[in-house]
Amino acid sequence: MRVTVVTLFPELFGTFAEVSFVGRARTQGTLVLETKNPRDHGLGKHKSVDDTPYGGGSGMVMRVDVLTAALEAVDAAAAAPAHRVLLTPQGAPFSQSSAKALSEKEHVVLVCGRYEGFDERVRSFVHEEISLGDFVMTGGEVAAMAIIESTVRLLKGVLGNPESTHEESHQGSLLEYSQYTRPAEFRGLGVPDVLKEGHHLKIAAHRKSEREERTQARRPDLYARYLQTKPPEKPKKAKRPNKAQAAKKGDE
Amino acid sequence: MRVTVVTLFPELFGTFAEVSFVGRARTQGTLVLETKNPRDHGLGKHKSVDDTPYGGGSGMVMRVDVLTAALEAVDAAAAAPAHRVLLTPQGAPFSQSSAKALSEKEHVVLVCGRYEGFDERVRSFVHEEISLGDFVMTGGEVAAMAIIESTVRLLKGVLGNPESTHEESHQGSLLEYSQYTRPAEFRGLGVPDVLKEGHHLKIAAHRKSEREERTQARRPDLYARYLQTKPPEKPKKAKRPNKAQAAKKGDE
Repeated sequence: MRVTVVTLFPELFGTFAEVSFVGRARTQGTLVLETKNPRDHGLGKHKSVDDTPYGGGSGMVMRVDVLTAALEAVDAAAAAPAHRVLLTPQGAPFSQSSAKALSEKEHVVLVCGRYEGFDERVRSFVHEEISLGDFVMTGGEVAAMAIIESTVRLLKGVLGNPESTHEESHQGSLLEYSQYTRPAEFRGLGVPDVLKEGHHLKIAAHRKSEREERTQARRPDLYARYLQTKPPEKPKKAKRPNKAQAAKKGDE
Repeated sequence: MRVTVVTLFPELFGTFAEVSFVGRARTQGTLVLETKNPRDHGLGKHKSVDDTPYGGGSGMVMRVDVLTAALEAVDAAAAAPAHRVLLTPQGAPFSQSSAKALSEKEHVVLVCGRYEGFDERVRSFVHEEISLGDFVMTGGEVAAMAIIESTVRLLKGVLGNPESTHEESHQGSLLEYSQYTRPAEFRGLGVPDVLKEGHHLKIAAHRKSEREERTQARRPDLYARYLQTKPPEKPKKAKRPNKAQAAKKGDE
């Protein structure tokens, strides 16, 4: 996968590209991560990328002509047109399913703003708009890092242990069960007995009910979604009559 | 404000602390940003910070004793105990109101995990748990950056233009209006006439109705919240009878 971050602050991605699993993915060749500075396409002696807003208001607005030139230079240097994502508070909230969809693209361009925002017309030159969440940031750079991190870890071979992504994604809308490691006691706080006894079926049942309980308590919104998508546990004992039975019943 | 990031990857915060307004806030003295590596308190020859989970499962779990030692070392070096925030998918989703609340603290400690997660008992040693959103990341570092960015920009004097934070926060739950700057025409796309005519009241009305319309179209969830908190526009024409009137009606 290739990711190009269009940013006025490419230096923010220096160490990010080197350490942990993002660095590993690059070394493996699974990920190519590069930056493109719109200032390369800036106007005039000062390589200006922004201007004051029509209609007044505070702050500066990034110009559509400069950003489009940067986006087109990225495509010109690549084999095929990239999937362009604008990072903006106006976008669709980023989620695990967006990460999954992006991880299936060949080449993704993440466009970061600074200043008060973009010229509205930039939206005509991107495929998708994503927001990291309902909080205000000054630029898209940290959002780009979050998207890269969640997306790249889904690429085959990036995480050391393939079980890790699997365990998180099945029963996707539940929070994780609690984890314990040594010491067995710390300042009066212990470890649940069931985890120490080593009975695998009991442990699995304990963890499942814990995931359900804590999701219900802390994130009723996720729990409601989970109940909607949860497959029936024992389909053979389904309480609803099937069509034949229903028809028969109607005949009685 | 003082922010301490507890992280196994302090190098990720190097450039982040230097550039843009986070760098400016540090130079001004508005922000002190520092890191604390739990590995300083790791165990044995390898300064180990994690161990395998009780009950089995993939991945490693960060130890409660090591993390607690790091947290207590941070407090020991400060004048007063800090407000400790655990970054975890189990936490409350981060929002603009969390940013506001954090910006009013003297000293915030952001605790980042790596590996499969924390020993559950760590939760007993923090004041708050925050999640960046419903997507899976491998560590808390990028979440810490997002929290620092949204929080620090609310500190007095950090943004060049005090109007900027004001404009974003009033009518807080609406999306922003669209922005335009030069050129007036780009590949057949123009700028709305009202913005070019310079009639300030008309511009304000145009922008307000645009904010409402685009929020309703793109984020019905935010729009519903906005309607609930919106003050009545003309309270003297309120359609509901007041208590006195209601009582009178009941008498009839």
